[in-house]
Amino acid sequence: MTGPYLAGVDIGGTKITVSLANIEGISVKIYQGIRLEGSNTTIPEQVDLLLGYACDHIGVRADEIMAVGVSSCGPFVKENDELIIAAPNLCGGLAIDRGIIPNDWTRIPLESVLSRRWGRMTIENDGVAAIMAERLFGAGRGEDDVVYVTWSTGIGSGAYVDGRLIHGKNGNAPHIGHIYLAEDGPPCGCGNFGDMESLVSGVAIARDFGSVRSAEEVFAAYRGGDGKAEEIINRAVINFARGLASINAVLDTSVFLIGGSVFINNIDILLPGIEAEFYRSFPLLSEDVDIRPCALGAFLGDMAAFSLVMPDEWIKKWQDNRPWEHAPPAVILEK
Amino acid sequence: MTGPYLAGVDIGGTKITVSLANIEGISVKIYQGIRLEGSNTTIPEQVDLLLGYACDHIGVRADEIMAVGVSSCGPFVKENDELIIAAPNLCGGLAIDRGIIPNDWTRIPLESVLSRRWGRMTIENDGVAAIMAERLFGAGRGEDDVVYVTWSTGIGSGAYVDGRLIHGKNGNAPHIGHIYLAEDGPPCGCGNFGDMESLVSGVAIARDFGSVRSAEEVFAAYRGGDGKAEEIINRAVINFARGLASINAVLDTSVFLIGGSVFINNIDILLPGIEAEFYRSFPLLSEDVDIRPCALGAFLGDMAAFSLVMPDEWIKKWQDNRPWEHAPPAVILEK
Repeated sequence: MTGPYLAGVDIGGTKITVSLANIEGISVKIYQGIRLEGSNTTIPEQVDLLLGYACDHIGVRADEIMAVGVSSCGPFVKENDELIIAAPNLCGGLAIDRGIIPNDWTRIPLESVLSRRWGRMTIENDGVAAIMAERLFGAGRGEDDVVYVTWSTGIGSGAYVDGRLIHGKNGNAPHIGHIYLAEDGPPCGCGNFGDMESLVSGVAIARDFGSVRSAEEVFAAYRGGDGKAEEIINRAVINFARGLASINAVLDTSVFLIGGSVFINNIDILLPGIEAEFYRSFPLLSEDVDIRPCALGAFLGDMAAFSLVMPDEWIKKWQDNRPWEHAPPAVILEK
Repeated sequence: MTGPYLAGVDIGGTKITVSLANIEGISVKIYQGIRLEGSNTTIPEQVDLLLGYACDHIGVRADEIMAVGVSSCGPFVKENDELIIAAPNLCGGLAIDRGIIPNDWTRIPLESVLSRRWGRMTIENDGVAAIMAERLFGAGRGEDDVVYVTWSTGIGSGAYVDGRLIHGKNGNAPHIGHIYLAEDGPPCGCGNFGDMESLVSGVAIARDFGSVRSAEEVFAAYRGGDGKAEEIINRAVINFARGLASINAVLDTSVFLIGGSVFINNIDILLPGIEAEFYRSFPLLSEDVDIRPCALGAFLGDMAAFSLVMPDEWIKKWQDNRPWEHAPPAVILEK
């Protein structure tokens, strides 16, 4: 395969993936656990190394990469016109009362570090990048009013309103994990009490059950007939649906696209309850809204990053040929 | 004064006002209690009569009105590309479990009735129209990310995101009165339980206190040292602020403009508490948001309606001369 190439970087709470693609499809995908110790340039330097590694892997030079799309967990702040990551999931200095993140960072200067070696770059909230990808290549094609929500370890989102992506002043719209849903609710890593993430995230489900490592174990207990697991998951379903209804009251959307491991692995349990509760809310606002699973599945993170910088002629070709379905397996690097 | 003229129509839950203006300023303002009995064309016909009355009052013909801006309580639905009012505050057939509205309407076909006699017309949710007016002439000038919230008998809103007004698929964005804030909350007229309107509206404050006709009496009791009034108002303040934080999590705004009779008449009691609770929410999202009272005061409804249809050369002149401050007193018609 020949260039030019695009790079896609997906920064999550636990891992970084870096992929390279040319117009024919994805050439290489590198996966590595995220490094959370050291100075606050650790993550930008890890991304830089992974980009270099990916280039070496397929024998291209850094200057053959025409653009880098970075999809990252947020929120962001702007300082001197530079986009800086200020995510409580990565920055120990922001994760109030949790103490599980082994650093004291409050800011991660991604753009300034990466721009030393890499040219054109677009950085977006992972929810925003995901809705771009699902609208171009997945379950949101042709929709002018469409909201993506990921139900995973945390809650993320992105939205088109009136055919346009919404950003807000610092690119943090919509950050729906932090809408309030309960007057007296549990604490969220962000400092809120009773927000959507504190009530329904994978972390919240595991916390409420106790003595498990992840929400998946609670779903396993539910499937085994455990009453406590059923109660916890039912409450999460109701609050998730009420969260969707709140977002819909603000954005008047047509379609919700739901992704994330908690949802995708348990659609059979979750979707019927979400629909039942959602359509119980103010009928005039809810009745003609469609709730759909995302379509890009395991490719969503890579496609989200590529979508940020993909030229129109690539988009057309990728929509026709769906090359992500034939991507090579990820190369997993030790952390 | 000579034409051409614009008409501004403001349809609220209890009254209709119709105003006419030329480039120099507001020529006449007519005010009448809203008619809620009869067929579902009662309100459109009342608006039509008031427009005719206003024209007669200053001696202009219907065809000298170059455009009509209509600011109305919502929400709206679209049927056959026509915007139709479907507001629980006006349509008895939609006001679930309330029975206080003396009709069984579910739809009010405003556009089709008015278009028989009046030419170019723009109909918008009153919150959307209000934010246009405040951004052109009031406290939101020059802001790209700005949200208007009215705290009155109900809760209304309008928003610019990234410098653009958001509408959503049926023009109902943002309808923030119907975001959820409590897991087990009181009923709202829309059918929700625990949404913002059910917890903080003027109606909710009066309901929680009991044996009063309006929220103003509860504020009077608060000022007189009544402990129950203080408790009710403090809870409303906290929920109002948490509602703002939720909207901010979705829209990542720069400025909230707060209006409405409950707020404007009691800024001294309400604003300090709203600010204290708002800035307690996720600091990265809340810390650089400004909360301001609206600036157009008693003129906001008229200016909202005019803003929907005002030509650019009028806007410039009105920004310089502020002619609304010299509008003639309203002519009040018996219902």
